[in-house]
Amino acid sequence: MVVGIERKPWDLFRKSIVKSYRQELWFNVPTRKGFVNITPQVMQCLKESNIIEGLVLINAMHITASVFINDDEPGLHQDLNVWLEKLAPREPVSSYCHNVGEDNADAHMKRQIMGREVVVAATNGKLDLGPWEQIFYGEFDGRREKRVLVKIIGE
Amino acid sequence: MVVGIERKPWDLFRKSIVKSYRQELWFNVPTRKGFVNITPQVMQCLKESNIIEGLVLINAMHITASVFINDDEPGLHQDLNVWLEKLAPREPVSSYCHNVGEDNADAHMKRQIMGREVVVAATNGKLDLGPWEQIFYGEFDGRREKRVLVKIIGE
Amino acid sequence: MVVGIERKPWDLFRKSIVKSYRQELWFNVPTRKGFVNITPQVMQCLKESNIIEGLVLINAMHITASVFINDDEPGLHQDLNVWLEKLAPREPVSSYCHNVGEDNADAHMKRQIMGREVVVAATNGKLDLGPWEQIFYGEFDGRREKRVLVKIIGE
Repeated sequence: MVVGIERKPWDLFRKSIVKSYRQELWFNVPTRKGFVNITPQVMQCLKESNIIEGLVLINAMHITASVFINDDEPGLHQDLNVWLEKLAPREPVSSYCHNVGEDNADAHMKRQIMGREVVVAATNGKLDLGPWEQIFYGEFDGRREKRVLVKIIGE
Repeated sequence: MVVGIERKPWDLFRKSIVKSYRQELWFNVPTRKGFVNITPQVMQCLKESNIIEGLVLINAMHITASVFINDDEPGLHQDLNVWLEKLAPREPVSSYCHNVGEDNADAHMKRQIMGREVVVAATNGKLDLGPWEQIFYGEFDGRREKRVLVKIIGE
Repeated sequence: MVVGIERKPWDLFRKSIVKSYRQELWFNVPTRKGFVNITPQVMQCLKESNIIEGLVLINAMHITASVFINDDEPGLHQDLNVWLEKLAPREPVSSYCHNVGEDNADAHMKRQIMGREVVVAATNGKLDLGPWEQIFYGEFDGRREKRVLVKIIGE
């Protein structure tokens, strides 16, 4: 782009170049279903990244789990559980075709409703969340180790 | 940052470093539920940002509201309303546990189906949308001030 | 990339400036509904982009189609089809208001459940997917040409 002009090592730009950060969060929810508030862990990732302005992707790495943003209120979580069971019932398992060594078709569907990922803005080094927004890991087929990916891009 | 210094050739890099932009859009939908086409406002944000290539995050900052992309056709909006009421009925309110000073559990669920956010590409300084894609704010518990965040990252 | 040549201070910037990439994937699903695994095409896009660390946005450009991540297992796909038909039934078409030269209201709803887009991390030049994550184009009103946008931002 700059032709015929000698380039100098101006460090003025240094704070403005692309930075990236990657971290896995591991979970082993002891029950089949559960919601885990992971906002503090994601905040910690952003802090470690030293990224001031950017986008934070938080996604389940498994297809029977979700990452979503909603309220941290136990009554609502119970409501969500009942509601998901109604929209994508686990029983009867025999009603599903996805029974090839597995019995978790309902978990794949619950995850579609709740979503795989959220993207959150990083502003001034902080998660740019609304007043009640909390980030959750949603487990629909637990009792084993599963992961969430946090990837941050910015400056 | 650099004040009182004449532009140097290396300022040509300026167009290739990370830029970011942040804006809040405020709403006060006078009814409990409503869909607002916010495509023009998001276009305006992108224009103001001077970002040519990048990603545009548009998210509800409240957990009883959505940002989604669909058709701007009144019949479809009526269909979506009826459908959401069927999948996540408001009544009877007493059927929900999330009644701790609130009566909007259904709004939290409707928002999960419609989604918290969309990410749209910025290409050549424009929103890179398909022919019928329009961006909407979806309100499920209105009659108060609520916000959408627009965050743009790119070059 | 540059081998055997002494690093100059300004080379430190070279690998760190914002890169972007855009590609459209075209589909003509011969049936009304269908799921197409597009993971190989998205991998190819990332390879062409030469982007090592970044975010990959993959979105349907049409409002009766989805991009989602789930399992590539035929039994599950059949389950998803049955389930979506139950949650957002096509028939009776006359029950919908969105019949202004169209008969696809159900497709607009199915797409809301399955989602418009996914954002996937690019790490070390590869799609940063969990062990079973596969990217799908979900068609709910096919038999015509439709597009998916792949936009990559990073360094």
